[in-house]
Amino acid sequence: MMSEVHLPRIAITMGDPAGVGPEIVCKALLRLSARRGPADPRIVVVGSGAALASAGRTLGKPADIALRCAEYVNGTVPGSGVFSLIDIAPAGAPVPSGRASEQGGRIAYLALERAVQPAMDGTVDAIVTAPLSKEALHLAGFPFSGHTDLLAHFTRTAGPVMMLVHENMRVSHVSTHLALSEVPRALTAARLARVVGCTHETLIELGIARPRIAVAALNPHGGEGGIFGDEDDRITAPEVARLRSEGLDIEGPIPGDTVFVKARGGQYDAVVAMYHDQGHIPVKLLGFRVDHATGKWTAVSGVNVTLGLPIVRTSVDHGTAFDIAGQGVANEESLMDAIDLALRLSRARLANGAQGGAGAARQGSPGSAPRGGDGYGSSH
Amino acid sequence: MMSEVHLPRIAITMGDPAGVGPEIVCKALLRLSARRGPADPRIVVVGSGAALASAGRTLGKPADIALRCAEYVNGTVPGSGVFSLIDIAPAGAPVPSGRASEQGGRIAYLALERAVQPAMDGTVDAIVTAPLSKEALHLAGFPFSGHTDLLAHFTRTAGPVMMLVHENMRVSHVSTHLALSEVPRALTAARLARVVGCTHETLIELGIARPRIAVAALNPHGGEGGIFGDEDDRITAPEVARLRSEGLDIEGPIPGDTVFVKARGGQYDAVVAMYHDQGHIPVKLLGFRVDHATGKWTAVSGVNVTLGLPIVRTSVDHGTAFDIAGQGVANEESLMDAIDLALRLSRARLANGAQGGAGAARQGSPGSAPRGGDGYGSSH
Repeated sequence: MMSEVHLPRIAITMGDPAGVGPEIVCKALLRLSARRGPADPRIVVVGSGAALASAGRTLGKPADIALRCAEYVNGTVPGSGVFSLIDIAPAGAPVPSGRASEQGGRIAYLALERAVQPAMDGTVDAIVTAPLSKEALHLAGFPFSGHTDLLAHFTRTAGPVMMLVHENMRVSHVSTHLALSEVPRALTAARLARVVGCTHETLIELGIARPRIAVAALNPHGGEGGIFGDEDDRITAPEVARLRSEGLDIEGPIPGDTVFVKARGGQYDAVVAMYHDQGHIPVKLLGFRVDHATGKWTAVSGVNVTLGLPIVRTSVDHGTAFDIAGQGVANEESLMDAIDLALRLSRARLANGAQGGAGAARQGSPGSAPRGGDGYGSSH
Repeated sequence: MMSEVHLPRIAITMGDPAGVGPEIVCKALLRLSARRGPADPRIVVVGSGAALASAGRTLGKPADIALRCAEYVNGTVPGSGVFSLIDIAPAGAPVPSGRASEQGGRIAYLALERAVQPAMDGTVDAIVTAPLSKEALHLAGFPFSGHTDLLAHFTRTAGPVMMLVHENMRVSHVSTHLALSEVPRALTAARLARVVGCTHETLIELGIARPRIAVAALNPHGGEGGIFGDEDDRITAPEVARLRSEGLDIEGPIPGDTVFVKARGGQYDAVVAMYHDQGHIPVKLLGFRVDHATGKWTAVSGVNVTLGLPIVRTSVDHGTAFDIAGQGVANEESLMDAIDLALRLSRARLANGAQGGAGAARQGSPGSAPRGGDGYGSSH
């Protein structure tokens, strides 16, 4: 219906104003502005207007930033304008720069909450998030472990799935922020089916008609027939066989130390990792760079996508970097990647007639995605 | 004393004759022969002479291989000759090609046992091993989990340490062939001290005067102050502080998803990984390649070094590859890397006056390596 005339609208939350969020958002706005085409998205920045203005000054582009965000909108979602700002400016002490603070945590929380509403209503098509500080969230009295938890809370969804993306490496996680000792118990057939299902659906949205998915083994060498743990034989192998019998192109368990090499070599469209480090190590090793001479980060490429929510959400895959914040030196590469991926996913959903938002967004891709009972509630 | 005239002698075990061992050994001999200089090592190949001859024919170089191994020595260690062969040919059925068999496992076992003797005596300076099959070992009645176990057994040593090396990435492991659920319990201060000590010593042998060592965190984000597991705060942090107070340049725990990026960026000379996949994923991702079109391995670069033994031992870091064995297509890159690293370590020990072998080999580097009680017996 509207999919041919509707331009995607993307909300970018600025994260903690004391971190690198404001400056990478500024840099991204300048780059988006420079490359604009007629089908480019409308951007709604949500966060501290004062921090954004300050970042504009640090970058030597105050007028530019002011111009890009000329249409300030408070309290309502903008219906027009290329860039706009929803200024989150709660009463309270000013935000100290370069460290976690109660006020910084509060602004980050309020900005995300504010961005979720129009995403749920369908008046913005995706949320892209700059980094926040868990410590600051806690100082502000919000006991969440980060964006993913917050988004699950705001959207009333259980069992979200974290996917990291860098170039052709796409890695979904069965578990993430969990002690290693609790990881084996987090692997259940239901959770694996949910992660595979969300992954498959997202790959189709990215234009891959018949996604090839690999499932990493939990134990080294896949457990070697049970000598090093039986979870791969007992849980993963039968569930992968079941999913394959439902028509999925899926393999596993494949030992962790070769599955990512194969994915990088184009043999799979995504890998399902069993735990945080198993999935994060390969993606960050490919996307991040540290300079030999200075020890500083020179590349932080890669995107964090939350699957299994009723909204499209992508994120940078780095933190607030308080130690370099406010100097204008932070790298916006990951944020640009996140915006581009949000755009691709939004366009796929718009083309699919799902621009109505939460209700229609995640009702499954045509026919092929497994929907094994996930034991994570029914809000999905 | 003898260190200026003694040329290193290296024993190369051929591993399972039904795997890729014989052909990669052939290819390595041809390359070593082509590049020979006056200070190059003497090579003693230990394994099935029939398999080596067959590999020579497959590669179209039967005469060459026969020439290189002109001096066949059975039962004694060669004192001269550039290349020589200790033929392991036990009575029994012929070895079926391309699969695990009792006879293949027996030959691999006997070859390793035969190579260890002169290494312990000091008449060879290092052992380099081609891959064997654990399944074949078991068929032959030897219930070991692989080379490292066998070497610990043959050299009567406990608590060996696996290090993987690819270019500037050197990664030692606190645990390796262990179910993930048992990994947290394998992390003790004593084991960490031993792994760090062996790593430090080896880096010095590699010519790094003041090694910089990073210790990876067990839990994601290092546990975030105990929220995702307390082992990093409870065990790793205090032991790293203790080792630093003894003068080591050591940092940790550092989250797994950034520590390898930093090591690759030259910030550390080695990383201590907590478990198999944490250490293997980054090294193999950098050293291995799979061709997009064919799905075949096109690079298998990297070396496995066993630290904490009384002998120098390096190995390929890939398996028997039964599926491609006998076709002459296997890649010898990892074996060449392993030979070169064995040579560097041997020369360091020879220069150090430690060519007497087992007794003198591992009595610690001058002054700096920590020797924290390791709880792994006293044979080291």
